[in-house]
Amino acid sequence: MLAYINRLAWEKTLETGKAHFWSRSRSKLWLKGESSGHIQIIHDILVDCDEDTVVFKVEQLGNAACHTGHRSCFYRKVENDKFIVQGEKVFDPEQVYGKT
Amino acid sequence: MLAYINRLAWEKTLETGKAHFWSRSRSKLWLKGESSGHIQIIHDILVDCDEDTVVFKVEQLGNAACHTGHRSCFYRKVENDKFIVQGEKVFDPEQVYGKT
Repeated sequence: MLAYINRLAWEKTLETGKAHFWSRSRSKLWLKGESSGHIQIIHDILVDCDEDTVVFKVEQLGNAACHTGHRSCFYRKVENDKFIVQGEKVFDPEQVYGKT
Repeated sequence: MLAYINRLAWEKTLETGKAHFWSRSRSKLWLKGESSGHIQIIHDILVDCDEDTVVFKVEQLGNAACHTGHRSCFYRKVENDKFIVQGEKVFDPEQVYGKT
């Protein structure tokens, strides 16, 4: 998954050892997994050459990071202008998030 | 590495099989490796759940993606508020880019 962090999300991540992001659509701090329980336990943090991007290497609770139920948000491959789904869903989003 | 693409970069990538990005600082199409020779040959493209991010899975010519000479731009690990460099440089940036 790719998500946005700001200083608060960064500090909360370091403080708690759990991945936090900043939800720009909701303008609030977002503990990843706060509704699904699919928390990300930080193992390592890598920082890039120009210091505007980090990689959180995590243990993914629930075995899926994506709100669609897939392990990764990048669950589709581009082939001949089509998206091919790869792998099965780990969970059913309706059961985890409810029918909203 | 993380970089920005626009429609032109996306189309050039699909057309040529080589990773293209859009340089926002230079406002121009950027064939990754155009000055270093460190071209990225596309193997697979993954697309994320909300379709605003892609992963290019590539063969990295020259064995290094980063302008610093490291294999990855994410060559530093965060430990106790310090950045710890991991791994050796694959190339010398001064030799590849010149002393600009």
